Amino acid sequence: MPETALQLVARVRNDFTEKFGVPRQAGLAEDLISRVVFEPEFKNADALRGLEGFSHIWLIWGFDRAARRGWSPTVRPPRLGGNRRVGVFATRSPFRPNALGLSCVRLLGIDGTDLLVGGADMTDGTPVYDIKPYLPYADCRPEAVGGYTDDLPERRLAVDFPEELLRKLPEEKRPGLLEVLSHDPRPSYQSDPEREYGLAFGGYDVRFCVSDGTLRVFQVLAK
Amino acid sequence: MPETALQLVARVRNDFTEKFGVPRQAGLAEDLISRVVFEPEFKNADALRGLEGFSHIWLIWGFDRAARRGWSPTVRPPRLGGNRRVGVFATRSPFRPNALGLSCVRLLGIDGTDLLVGGADMTDGTPVYDIKPYLPYADCRPEAVGGYTDDLPERRLAVDFPEELLRKLPEEKRPGLLEVLSHDPRPSYQSDPEREYGLAFGGYDVRFCVSDGTLRVFQVLAK
Repeated sequence: MPETALQLVARVRNDFTEKFGVPRQAGLAEDLISRVVFEPEFKNADALRGLEGFSHIWLIWGFDRAARRGWSPTVRPPRLGGNRRVGVFATRSPFRPNALGLSCVRLLGIDGTDLLVGGADMTDGTPVYDIKPYLPYADCRPEAVGGYTDDLPERRLAVDFPEELLRKLPEEKRPGLLEVLSHDPRPSYQSDPEREYGLAFGGYDVRFCVSDGTLRVFQVLAK
Repeated sequence: MPETALQLVARVRNDFTEKFGVPRQAGLAEDLISRVVFEPEFKNADALRGLEGFSHIWLIWGFDRAARRGWSPTVRPPRLGGNRRVGVFATRSPFRPNALGLSCVRLLGIDGTDLLVGGADMTDGTPVYDIKPYLPYADCRPEAVGGYTDDLPERRLAVDFPEELLRKLPEEKRPGLLEVLSHDPRPSYQSDPEREYGLAFGGYDVRFCVSDGTLRVFQVLAK
């Protein structure tokens, strides 16, 4: 079996120390800010020249927490409720032959050689193997048909986040967190209104319940 | 330097035995048909279940002919005339730290476990590391700004391909070849009207000249 080695080029830095709460796809929570930090040997402003003119970029990255579990031909995507099997190549599941992720994110700015991006769907520390500009003429296909994903309703929750709890978080983190919560971080098959969830976000434990289409935050603890 | 190994999942099969003539990006020549042929251990119809509902797919693949040349922080994209340097991460150049390519292609059909795709920008034999569905809600960004690529005129040539020469080629190969020629396969910095070019395509040598915005095929030789 021929193999090709990938070098670690950069790492994602953001507020998600755990997988719970990470948006299911890139772009769903565009106010969520991450930093792409190059490894020492790739910290080079020249390598970014011209990138500032692009509004969106691709990240090709590694599902480093999934790699060890291997792959099976079919998977059960959470968005399908976790009970319908589809082929792994018909999904963006982490559990694939090569555990590569692909995400289109907004390029918010370049800070030294760090990239500030909006809408990433990765945890803190995720390895990045390539950064490419999003080329509208090649990558944007308005005519595209999205198979089984086209039929899925976009489930959004109302978010009840009391002002005194929200103020415990730094101001710049609030819009992204509110987006994340509105996308319903719970596993698809859970709908117990009594159940309490804890979202680890930027050093805080954001505790909430969900009932009747509303997510209610009842506690924010510094960890 | 941490490294991650990629397994060979499939190979592209098409009419380009040489790099000359391969479209500069995916989707430019959608009538160009390629076949994605899985390696024996990944030939599994279950792994493709549900993929048939998608009109477009992503291929993550290896620039296997570029990998040996290494990378430099800046490159000169052919589309910029080959004389302007931009950062490698602001381009889709093959000469990058990890020689990965990313292409959105049309899914024309599934033949056994082979994928028939339109618009690939790869040579015959190109290694494929991942296949993912194109998700319109995450991947299609009509608001995206394409940096320096937005200012570039789309240069198309008129193609004068005499009927008796065109008939030498199998009928199903003709539309793709005509698209490829209209996109001007010459290196950007060449404009000698006397110069004769030979495009290797599906076992034929398609010989042409270009002058005054018209590409004229004057010979088609079986190789």
